[in-house]
Amino acid sequence: MKFNFSERVPKNDDDAVGSILKAAVDPKVISLAGGLPSPDLFPVKELKKAADEVFDNDAKEALQYGQAAGYEKLREQIAKMTRERGVDCTVDNVAVTTGSEQSIDLVGKLLVNPGDTVLVEKPTYLCTLDVLRSYGAKLVGVDMDADGMRVDSLKQALKEHPDAKMLYTIPNFQNPTGHTMPNDRREALEKLLAAHNVVVLEDDPYGKIRYTGKTQYPVKHFDHTGNVIYMSSFSKFLVPGVRLGWMVADPAFMKKLLPMKQSADLHSDNLSQYIVSRYLSENDVQPHVDQICALYKKRANTMMKELDAKLPKGVTHSVPEGGMFLWVKAPETVNTVDLFKECIKHHVAFVPGAPFYPNEVTQGTFRLNFSNVDSATIKKGVDRLCDALNEFMTAKQK
Amino acid sequence: MKFNFSERVPKNDDDAVGSILKAAVDPKVISLAGGLPSPDLFPVKELKKAADEVFDNDAKEALQYGQAAGYEKLREQIAKMTRERGVDCTVDNVAVTTGSEQSIDLVGKLLVNPGDTVLVEKPTYLCTLDVLRSYGAKLVGVDMDADGMRVDSLKQALKEHPDAKMLYTIPNFQNPTGHTMPNDRREALEKLLAAHNVVVLEDDPYGKIRYTGKTQYPVKHFDHTGNVIYMSSFSKFLVPGVRLGWMVADPAFMKKLLPMKQSADLHSDNLSQYIVSRYLSENDVQPHVDQICALYKKRANTMMKELDAKLPKGVTHSVPEGGMFLWVKAPETVNTVDLFKECIKHHVAFVPGAPFYPNEVTQGTFRLNFSNVDSATIKKGVDRLCDALNEFMTAKQK
Repeated sequence: MKFNFSERVPKNDDDAVGSILKAAVDPKVISLAGGLPSPDLFPVKELKKAADEVFDNDAKEALQYGQAAGYEKLREQIAKMTRERGVDCTVDNVAVTTGSEQSIDLVGKLLVNPGDTVLVEKPTYLCTLDVLRSYGAKLVGVDMDADGMRVDSLKQALKEHPDAKMLYTIPNFQNPTGHTMPNDRREALEKLLAAHNVVVLEDDPYGKIRYTGKTQYPVKHFDHTGNVIYMSSFSKFLVPGVRLGWMVADPAFMKKLLPMKQSADLHSDNLSQYIVSRYLSENDVQPHVDQICALYKKRANTMMKELDAKLPKGVTHSVPEGGMFLWVKAPETVNTVDLFKECIKHHVAFVPGAPFYPNEVTQGTFRLNFSNVDSATIKKGVDRLCDALNEFMTAKQK
Repeated sequence: MKFNFSERVPKNDDDAVGSILKAAVDPKVISLAGGLPSPDLFPVKELKKAADEVFDNDAKEALQYGQAAGYEKLREQIAKMTRERGVDCTVDNVAVTTGSEQSIDLVGKLLVNPGDTVLVEKPTYLCTLDVLRSYGAKLVGVDMDADGMRVDSLKQALKEHPDAKMLYTIPNFQNPTGHTMPNDRREALEKLLAAHNVVVLEDDPYGKIRYTGKTQYPVKHFDHTGNVIYMSSFSKFLVPGVRLGWMVADPAFMKKLLPMKQSADLHSDNLSQYIVSRYLSENDVQPHVDQICALYKKRANTMMKELDAKLPKGVTHSVPEGGMFLWVKAPETVNTVDLFKECIKHHVAFVPGAPFYPNEVTQGTFRLNFSNVDSATIKKGVDRLCDALNEFMTAKQK
């Protein structure tokens, strides 16, 4: 049987990222390529207790079919958390999803017609690019600096693409750059986009994982027209295996979202929703988050210290205030896919910058992860990386 | 903000089925409308034990990100179950999904371009119709009889629609009719479709829930070209709350499926996959399935006995050999949406036939569920229904 796939399916079978992650799995290789939270801090004991109580008290409800919008009690807890971040919302604004990836997919399906223009940070989360492409989006990259998306570049993009329908942004500790937008920039950005009737998809998976600097408001805090769809998830501050995320949005959006969510998977795992809800009822999340922040801060600092000591001249790195990633910029003459192959010989891996770019790639860039590698291994990994980079750049000059 | 939704989103906000289910929630109403398995038989104790062991032994893996294809051990168990049904397959043919709804959605996304012809039984599972419509499918209904889809009608449909790309079928205890296709018809159907290069999506959620008659092979058993995508789920014979289903398909299909699954939700709930896998390792499923079958058989027989005694002349019902539903046919002059409103006054609910039809509706039809209502309540519900139907038909004649 030769399957005649739809136009949504990429013709190409190249899985650049897949083959990178595969190379990074070799036990001899120190992988700074992944994007996994540290399992050492999963609250296993507390989740087990919550699960036992769900089986003892709510088993028939938790194991039965549930509601497309999600378990009501969990939605209330999410609404409360979101209000605490400065977003005006109630349970009716909240839908539980099967992780952030599904939130992005549903928003793409609901809003993007083939040919619609979607603005994204340049670079940005590569899976979002894949999802938006699968719905036929025309992707337009907007420049960033150390404070995230630049307002002047956004203005220019809106001028060149007056039909832009949506903008996707990760304002906190962006993936892949680690950059964070300050409040005044968030406000300016939202004002501009609301005036242009552009929907904002605000992706905030790392928001709670801040280990230095001052917490900023979500872009949604500055939303007075309902154009911002805020999304987050339990993956980074609790556990990712349960695949639970959420969206907070205007009632007009929710009305169309829920039937689409129902068509996607009826509802998200009910048992896990009950377990997480009980966990949230019985535990103060903040001390747990503080532990994660302390660990990641230590690892980020180790990585930056080592990079500062060893990176060749002309190579810089971002300085994240939270999250899991930092971004390295070498001269544009450095092809980081070739560098990756060299690094594998040195038994260290990262993610080359190319797949994070919507269109034209800025050469010489790559992403490093520090959340799931202990400090001693980070040191060793960065040493190998800098050795390989030094050799690579020296060989280039010859 | 006025959202400019994509063309995939129905303009219409009417949610016929939603408002029916809402009316059925009134505690005074006996609902024969739902599609829920009986929670009385959920293996709560065994699942709790499995969950405890996962937390004690595999917590870091189960709570971490997993693989798009699913937890390998669970996929092996699914492959084994599928081989036992007479389908030649290995772990490489199996992908875990977030329930059957997601399997249908992914197949629609992968195969259906706007305008593509998809053949379906007439009537069929209404959520499948919604999903296929959201991808722009042109739906063509094929007639059924008590043995499921008719081969002569299928031949005619293939003649009229030589470009047909896919066929969707529920061969066992079909939703909504309860009809089952015998082996010879399955073989004839598959031979015909393979010859026409039509993909078959075989949806088998109820396959294990047979309480009379002889088990038939899946259509996939007769597949020699790889054109059949077989799908099933844990919802009906274990628990639906964990939202775990699966697909068994040709490697050429799997290759494109997995990136699309990854774009949909990265992977299905890992914790639940580990729990279900452990449950399957430690328990013999068959005695549990036998219990479900015994209970549903009793309920189906109660319903049929009561219908046979009380249905007005000219009204018939199907005789399912398994599953959760039966189908009632009144004269076509009976508008079952109007009848539904009458029945609500009599405090009983069903699902009118209309939403199960791809295009033209056969009037006078409706679906009854017997899996989640005890026998005494079924009796009372059918009495009320027959009273309402008698009054309705008598009033019509006047």
